[in-house]
Amino acid sequence: MQMRTEHDLLGDKHLPEHCWYGIQTQRALDNFTITGVPISHFPELVNALAMVKLAAAAANRDLGLLPAHKAEAIIAACEQVCQGHLHDQFVVDMIQGGAGTSTNMNANEVIANLALARLGHARGEYQYLHPNDDVNRSQSTNDAYPTAACVAIQCATDPLIDSLSSLIDALRDKGQAFAGIVKMGRTQLQDAVPMTLGQEFEAFAVTLGEDIDRLHEACTLLCEVNLGGTAIGTGLNAHPDYSALAIRHLAKVSGKPLVPASNLIEATSDMGAFVFFSGMLKRLAIKLSKLANDLRLLSSGPRTGLGEIHLPAVQPGSSIMPGKVNPVIPEAVNQTAFQVIASDLAVTLAAEAGQLQLNAMEPLIVYNLLNAIRMLRSACEMLELRCIRGIQADTERCAAHLNNSIGVITALVPHIGYSQASRIASIALHTGATVRELVLAEALLTEETLDRLLSPQAMLAPSLIEASGRVA
Amino acid sequence: MQMRTEHDLLGDKHLPEHCWYGIQTQRALDNFTITGVPISHFPELVNALAMVKLAAAAANRDLGLLPAHKAEAIIAACEQVCQGHLHDQFVVDMIQGGAGTSTNMNANEVIANLALARLGHARGEYQYLHPNDDVNRSQSTNDAYPTAACVAIQCATDPLIDSLSSLIDALRDKGQAFAGIVKMGRTQLQDAVPMTLGQEFEAFAVTLGEDIDRLHEACTLLCEVNLGGTAIGTGLNAHPDYSALAIRHLAKVSGKPLVPASNLIEATSDMGAFVFFSGMLKRLAIKLSKLANDLRLLSSGPRTGLGEIHLPAVQPGSSIMPGKVNPVIPEAVNQTAFQVIASDLAVTLAAEAGQLQLNAMEPLIVYNLLNAIRMLRSACEMLELRCIRGIQADTERCAAHLNNSIGVITALVPHIGYSQASRIASIALHTGATVRELVLAEALLTEETLDRLLSPQAMLAPSLIEASGRVA
Amino acid sequence: MQMRTEHDLLGDKHLPEHCWYGIQTQRALDNFTITGVPISHFPELVNALAMVKLAAAAANRDLGLLPAHKAEAIIAACEQVCQGHLHDQFVVDMIQGGAGTSTNMNANEVIANLALARLGHARGEYQYLHPNDDVNRSQSTNDAYPTAACVAIQCATDPLIDSLSSLIDALRDKGQAFAGIVKMGRTQLQDAVPMTLGQEFEAFAVTLGEDIDRLHEACTLLCEVNLGGTAIGTGLNAHPDYSALAIRHLAKVSGKPLVPASNLIEATSDMGAFVFFSGMLKRLAIKLSKLANDLRLLSSGPRTGLGEIHLPAVQPGSSIMPGKVNPVIPEAVNQTAFQVIASDLAVTLAAEAGQLQLNAMEPLIVYNLLNAIRMLRSACEMLELRCIRGIQADTERCAAHLNNSIGVITALVPHIGYSQASRIASIALHTGATVRELVLAEALLTEETLDRLLSPQAMLAPSLIEASGRVA
Amino acid sequence: MQMRTEHDLLGDKHLPEHCWYGIQTQRALDNFTITGVPISHFPELVNALAMVKLAAAAANRDLGLLPAHKAEAIIAACEQVCQGHLHDQFVVDMIQGGAGTSTNMNANEVIANLALARLGHARGEYQYLHPNDDVNRSQSTNDAYPTAACVAIQCATDPLIDSLSSLIDALRDKGQAFAGIVKMGRTQLQDAVPMTLGQEFEAFAVTLGEDIDRLHEACTLLCEVNLGGTAIGTGLNAHPDYSALAIRHLAKVSGKPLVPASNLIEATSDMGAFVFFSGMLKRLAIKLSKLANDLRLLSSGPRTGLGEIHLPAVQPGSSIMPGKVNPVIPEAVNQTAFQVIASDLAVTLAAEAGQLQLNAMEPLIVYNLLNAIRMLRSACEMLELRCIRGIQADTERCAAHLNNSIGVITALVPHIGYSQASRIASIALHTGATVRELVLAEALLTEETLDRLLSPQAMLAPSLIEASGRVA
Repeated sequence: MQMRTEHDLLGDKHLPEHCWYGIQTQRALDNFTITGVPISHFPELVNALAMVKLAAAAANRDLGLLPAHKAEAIIAACEQVCQGHLHDQFVVDMIQGGAGTSTNMNANEVIANLALARLGHARGEYQYLHPNDDVNRSQSTNDAYPTAACVAIQCATDPLIDSLSSLIDALRDKGQAFAGIVKMGRTQLQDAVPMTLGQEFEAFAVTLGEDIDRLHEACTLLCEVNLGGTAIGTGLNAHPDYSALAIRHLAKVSGKPLVPASNLIEATSDMGAFVFFSGMLKRLAIKLSKLANDLRLLSSGPRTGLGEIHLPAVQPGSSIMPGKVNPVIPEAVNQTAFQVIASDLAVTLAAEAGQLQLNAMEPLIVYNLLNAIRMLRSACEMLELRCIRGIQADTERCAAHLNNSIGVITALVPHIGYSQASRIASIALHTGATVRELVLAEALLTEETLDRLLSPQAMLAPSLIEASGRVA
Repeated sequence: MQMRTEHDLLGDKHLPEHCWYGIQTQRALDNFTITGVPISHFPELVNALAMVKLAAAAANRDLGLLPAHKAEAIIAACEQVCQGHLHDQFVVDMIQGGAGTSTNMNANEVIANLALARLGHARGEYQYLHPNDDVNRSQSTNDAYPTAACVAIQCATDPLIDSLSSLIDALRDKGQAFAGIVKMGRTQLQDAVPMTLGQEFEAFAVTLGEDIDRLHEACTLLCEVNLGGTAIGTGLNAHPDYSALAIRHLAKVSGKPLVPASNLIEATSDMGAFVFFSGMLKRLAIKLSKLANDLRLLSSGPRTGLGEIHLPAVQPGSSIMPGKVNPVIPEAVNQTAFQVIASDLAVTLAAEAGQLQLNAMEPLIVYNLLNAIRMLRSACEMLELRCIRGIQADTERCAAHLNNSIGVITALVPHIGYSQASRIASIALHTGATVRELVLAEALLTEETLDRLLSPQAMLAPSLIEASGRVA
Repeated sequence: MQMRTEHDLLGDKHLPEHCWYGIQTQRALDNFTITGVPISHFPELVNALAMVKLAAAAANRDLGLLPAHKAEAIIAACEQVCQGHLHDQFVVDMIQGGAGTSTNMNANEVIANLALARLGHARGEYQYLHPNDDVNRSQSTNDAYPTAACVAIQCATDPLIDSLSSLIDALRDKGQAFAGIVKMGRTQLQDAVPMTLGQEFEAFAVTLGEDIDRLHEACTLLCEVNLGGTAIGTGLNAHPDYSALAIRHLAKVSGKPLVPASNLIEATSDMGAFVFFSGMLKRLAIKLSKLANDLRLLSSGPRTGLGEIHLPAVQPGSSIMPGKVNPVIPEAVNQTAFQVIASDLAVTLAAEAGQLQLNAMEPLIVYNLLNAIRMLRSACEMLELRCIRGIQADTERCAAHLNNSIGVITALVPHIGYSQASRIASIALHTGATVRELVLAEALLTEETLDRLLSPQAMLAPSLIEASGRVA
Repeated sequence: MQMRTEHDLLGDKHLPEHCWYGIQTQRALDNFTITGVPISHFPELVNALAMVKLAAAAANRDLGLLPAHKAEAIIAACEQVCQGHLHDQFVVDMIQGGAGTSTNMNANEVIANLALARLGHARGEYQYLHPNDDVNRSQSTNDAYPTAACVAIQCATDPLIDSLSSLIDALRDKGQAFAGIVKMGRTQLQDAVPMTLGQEFEAFAVTLGEDIDRLHEACTLLCEVNLGGTAIGTGLNAHPDYSALAIRHLAKVSGKPLVPASNLIEATSDMGAFVFFSGMLKRLAIKLSKLANDLRLLSSGPRTGLGEIHLPAVQPGSSIMPGKVNPVIPEAVNQTAFQVIASDLAVTLAAEAGQLQLNAMEPLIVYNLLNAIRMLRSACEMLELRCIRGIQADTERCAAHLNNSIGVITALVPHIGYSQASRIASIALHTGATVRELVLAEALLTEETLDRLLSPQAMLAPSLIEASGRVA
């Protein structure tokens, strides 16, 4: 293999000639092999790093701190990377020491070599354009890396929100399709009072809809970035106008409404916005898990469970039990949710471990956030397309449950009193008779009144329902 | 002991005559002894329960569903409870099955008996005013209990925000007092570049200030309540106007801007707002723990640590080592933070365990939130009064660290280049010489230039600092 | 109020004359008000502290380091405390800074004053017998406190194991009582193959039984104590024979087979045994939660759930729905389990936060372990006495599920083949016919063969079952 | 692309002709794309699946349930897989619904096709040898999958224990190399009493050594497997002798002392052994994180920190600060530890979510355990080779800290009394004088006595140290 030699403060090192990254990336490759997951697993992070380098180069050029030819070469290289070029050269393991320095240097080196190529130089001829002095100019890892993370997370969240929206649409569609199917509601796994299956699915849609709002809020917090703070937020060695200018360039190229943090020292060490973001992902995971649990309960059976809905069969369920079909999609959603909840703990631990002017555990935070976003997006798509869209109601079972239920007696309380109702409920429970039969047998109400009170219209409390617009 | 007998659907039970609670509370006492912590440990919860009962009675009265004399008696009883009366009668264990039914019935029974007393009846004479039929009228535990929780958490948060604000004031005061003390900043526990001790404390103030905003947002989410949804959110057995009316009364009596949830079915089972709130408490805990860690690091010593600040001595540190004084207050803050982080996990687990139309684990959520708020408030007060206010800077140590540091060389990079600077840094590290000495010895810069570049003004990058207004 | 004055290195302080604790306890009271839970909430900890002080006094006496009259007075005082005397004087908050110094001093002071009283002196006359010099002799908080914790946790675990054993007995009794009730087993909430209800309860008993073994192992790890290590494990200021001697005394008085840790420096900072213990409590919590979940599933209904068992009614379930009875005991078990799982996180965080020669967060670890043990013990008792013992099987429902089930077809696979079986299963699912009907209709098997293959004996695979001795 | 068609109960599906897996694997690929991490990421799992299939085939052959030519072909195919053959055909995502059915079917299909090839048939000609009927014979996913997991985890643990042992050796070597370097011990980040740097490293070695014992115990629990339980542990459709026989074969091929679980029904749903295992990994992670924290503290500096040791420089530390070298290896260890702690939460959540006769979340458990083992092994290697082996002591700094320290006064307490010692300590603290100077100035002790008491020999309490054999 053709090799080239690069040099840093620790000495010389040989690199394969075809590598677009340089010596510091190679050292990081040697040092860190924890996860086996490279930066390139998260294209949004690679792109965001390139956008930060582009914005810095543009700002340095505007301020006369970088010659135009260098700036243009760097900017063009960054644009190439943003188009997907050379992503496979972003090779450093996501779990790394150094607070992101290796990730930052991986970007600096790849972009420097790409820019060198544009300028007609060979890889490694850093005397013409240098990873640190030129690509990283006016930056420290401590501002460039978290800024890139803020951009990457927002960019990764866009498709998550899209997937979540489609999932919500699917749930709302089922809510409408099932609007006429009356069933028993359950509290504490015990029969409660009637509702429609449509209301049940509509409620899923509503609850997930709230999380889209929360994700947007979480993105807003990530719009405050610390670019320009350099090493610890004092901005040492950066031009006074650099921060605002670079962030303006970055906002433009990323399409995100970024602004400088009001206190750069605080912003350099604080992980609050990441913690907040992780909390929102966890909240979404909790809701998805509850939804998956409900789907598995409602579809339990086919003969000895609740059986009110049927999930689409997507794969055979058992190698030993013929005809068995399992709720594999909700089960995968549960597991995704558990993994995201666990990710939030990793973020928590890393955030708590910050010390003095920096949090050296940022790479773990970025890794867990991007991974959680990726998994949640995939889970939302899978849940929508391979489960929700194909759900069918078992109308007969819903009706049988309703007619057989004792819980409907609640609707009679205002008419026969709580204590009469309790007595009837108890007889029903022990004899197996229906509430209707017992009330008629004791002539507590006329058949006509009973019909009216136990009609779906009455039991679903139409006035209230109309008020909140949930049933046509 | 004088006893009275009460009756419910499970049969008769004897109660001590002096008890203001009734049979269902007694059953809950018999059933649940998990934590040993009764509801009354959280006065805000007792008060909030009374407020909900008051609001319901007022709404029922307005709608003609409750006779005026009963309504007035209930309202007066609730007001008494809000003034602190009979809190010791709220005895049920905070961890309880039944989704809060026992807590709700404890409130219904105490308030019924108190109202009975006002009407001239004996405790237990429920034929005149009934815990369920009158006090709990138009309600289910499933709407009354979470509504009370939303109010209680907000009320408990007010003093937390006050304590946090005072803590922030103390940090900001120190930020100003220490504004002139230049020191070395540290990243990854390694010497970085200069900053002022004032900036360090100001950053603490800023970062905690953001959490006041987050807590306010979290309270806003809790303003959407499900009162009027009754059993599962369909509002069965409630008057169509009841929900809006009762919530208006509750908003008035609680002083909180409460509104009905847009979808009562969703609101009855969803724990999202509690999860959000818990996440904000966790975020605050993480920040307090990082602050405590920094205080312990900066005050480490007295001779073999960093020693840049001195914490006030609040108790002798050791029974065996004379003169030892430990950072006990920050240590207690760390432990409080860990407990709050753990609480968030309990909330997470409970929220995920909701099933179908209700989350039966709500009592655990309410317990952990109220406990976390209480602990954080106490921690903020303790930290402010017993630590931050008494912190003194070790100006000499800060100056010695600065003068001895190699990190100041970063300020020379734009003038002598990165590679020269690296070489000088390396010599300094291995010989123990100062950067100033080496640069002068090699005549790389004149003494005058060196003085200017290494002056605090230059190294603290005044332009940037002025821009963010942190140093006069 | 009569006051007395005490003095320590921070100066003078007034104390109520009737207090048995002294100045350092008072300072801790002033400093720490986080949880509101005092040491005395955990009698095992108070007793264990007294045992350590007793053992130390005895060892010091044996080695001639403490005059006999002082030693005897201290020993007698400790014995009084172990008998429950003055527990209300152990007042310090469980969450405290100082690595347990305040707890240790609370014990030193109360025991000193009690010993003084026995010697005819007034409280506070420490010139005759001193909390530090005499009661704490040869000790540091850093060895006395964790040693006491190790003893306290073991003592608290004894009744937990008793409660757990009784719970297991109850489950095993139900396993036997239900041995003849055949039902459908379920995997992934879908009908699987037959089993007996007795097997289901026996499996609960078996799985919890394994945790008794784990708890005993966890206690074994706690038998290695660091008493004698003094400040950091080097044993500075302790007599060379002291450690072994004191631990021998402590083993005798506590009845626990304590031994000196092999490396006292390691033992002083390592929290491994506590982490292990916490992990075992978490494991037990997970199992109890799964058991509670299963009970709630199996008893779901009464009409629209699985309904294979009936839990005893222990309190009315609803203020609005007549006759509703909820699974409140399993619900409380779930919540207890969640709290214990959360406690394990607090222990994890605290254990990770140790630094250099000590872990200053030990008080949080001790608090969470003792609290988790207490809650689990209470949950086991509650679950046994208020739920398991009263469970009744719904034999008819179990039989109906079995007869109606498609899953029984698995037993025919070796005879009609997987593909025939799959086809029959599919027809059964879509027509509602039973497997038996379809197989007979198609004459795939004779009625006699079918009867034999679908008999409980065949389907429960008696050979295997006999081998593991679960069904007579 | 050449395609072939396969069929299952959901219908036909086209597969690329070159695929060694079959239709059910393809369906799983379509269904699950959560992590992007395929089974083949964990070679031990692929091997363990092959071993289980081998053992089952051998047992079926022995019992006359599988023709010899089929059995031999399957066994040979499994051996090929165990040698690393076709691992890239194990493609299903680690997070999957179906309780491992997809993983099990992936193994069944690849092994069937490989066996078919050996028998001279084309891929997909299952009429000659069937994935379900032959490869999966006498098995259910519910016993085959967890059994494979138990084997895989043990196999993956072997190299972890090797790496951990090497790390311990490195720590012990440093313990010996630094045995003569006396330094100040610290508690609560405050100067305590003297110790040697060697003792500090020896304690690290001791504490990690205990975790090797714990890992072995954890493996022992995994030796109880449920192979032969089939669907729910009743062993339906399995020959009575099959379980014992298959497990004997599996023990032989895996080299692990596997035994049948005593209760197969319990064993099929219980996750206790996995929870235990995860807890041990977490415990190890906590200890590694504490070790990493201490390394970072002790090497903090170079000028403004503790600086008692120097970590080897493995990469440049900063793009902006010349000469900065950071403790990147310990930082990566911290992050690995946090990720492992988070994994334990995922395992906890998954274990708690088991229902009735199975835990459908097993794939998440297996994924997290294997991933945590892999990360920890990598972290141990990295820590040993790139950090511990190259650590150098700063003997001068240690000595300066010792001589300058006030904490040494503890050694004088038995001679000048606690109160004199406290007074001297206080003067030292406020004047900057050393203890030695002050004691001599006040003539409290002769110079000779002082020399003796403050000698390392005296302060390190040789008698105790000799007893535990840590210093020659």
